Amino acid sequence: MRRTFLLRPVEPPFHLVLVAPEIPANTGNIARLCACTGARLHLVCPLGFAVDDRSLRRAGLDYWAEVHAETWASFEELEASLDLSGRGRPKLHLFSARAEKSHLSATFAPGDWLVFGRESRGLPEAVLERYADRTVALPMREGSRSLNLASTVAVALYEALRQTAAR
Amino acid sequence: MRRTFLLRPVEPPFHLVLVAPEIPANTGNIARLCACTGARLHLVCPLGFAVDDRSLRRAGLDYWAEVHAETWASFEELEASLDLSGRGRPKLHLFSARAEKSHLSATFAPGDWLVFGRESRGLPEAVLERYADRTVALPMREGSRSLNLASTVAVALYEALRQTAAR
Repeated sequence: MRRTFLLRPVEPPFHLVLVAPEIPANTGNIARLCACTGARLHLVCPLGFAVDDRSLRRAGLDYWAEVHAETWASFEELEASLDLSGRGRPKLHLFSARAEKSHLSATFAPGDWLVFGRESRGLPEAVLERYADRTVALPMREGSRSLNLASTVAVALYEALRQTAAR
Repeated sequence: MRRTFLLRPVEPPFHLVLVAPEIPANTGNIARLCACTGARLHLVCPLGFAVDDRSLRRAGLDYWAEVHAETWASFEELEASLDLSGRGRPKLHLFSARAEKSHLSATFAPGDWLVFGRESRGLPEAVLERYADRTVALPMREGSRSLNLASTVAVALYEALRQTAAR
């Protein structure tokens, strides 16, 4: 039996950016999330693994062929490729445990870019400073640290989908 | 710097039920989700790992002490412990890729129980039949299979939190 309800395609699709991810199984699970939702995947070097790493492929292997993935030399190279000025520009949302706003306060639109840092240290300070007004976090209990990266990305993307196409 | 916004405690808390989970790293990540949100964790036997499994502890180790976790011999034992009749009864939400309704159509209230099946095969048919009107799925693209279990649980719980306390 197949599901009788589906995710309507989001056009243009959402983009998920992983800056310097370290743990291959997380990237594999995020690739699987992209396969299930149609989001595009962007991996920003340095990567903590080879893209044919066994544990990455184990987590996302059957899905990898269905994923539109790009690799970038640096976050600045990716930024330079985007036209971030003017109307109709793609909008970036940065996720950081140090953010002062909840991701629920963000307004997501098709074509937006959701940007996540490395597992151990999050996004570089210099990047966060450039987008201070666009930085959000998932709400958590007082004193808690952070969720697994793949879980964070899934929650963020499904909130973006909820606000746009998913019902 | 600490976050200046927090998740307000949900009272009574949400309950996350994993029925016969197979992959220890997923349960570890879900334990971490519980530590970050205050949700309660319920593991229904058989488990595909020992609760001191290395990869479970690696994924959730630092968090395990903060998690309120219970283990149940069977789903029926857990059901029998709940008073599912009458007003004010706890409400179950079952997650299945074969559901015909989106999780976004569900109304979550504090104290609800969110129930997830094993990674390879989902919830037992007999359980799904008992709660056919309470079974939902995350919307996905046509023809896609399923998300990683820990990602699914995180998306589901954060939708429940969004509907109740999180902002």
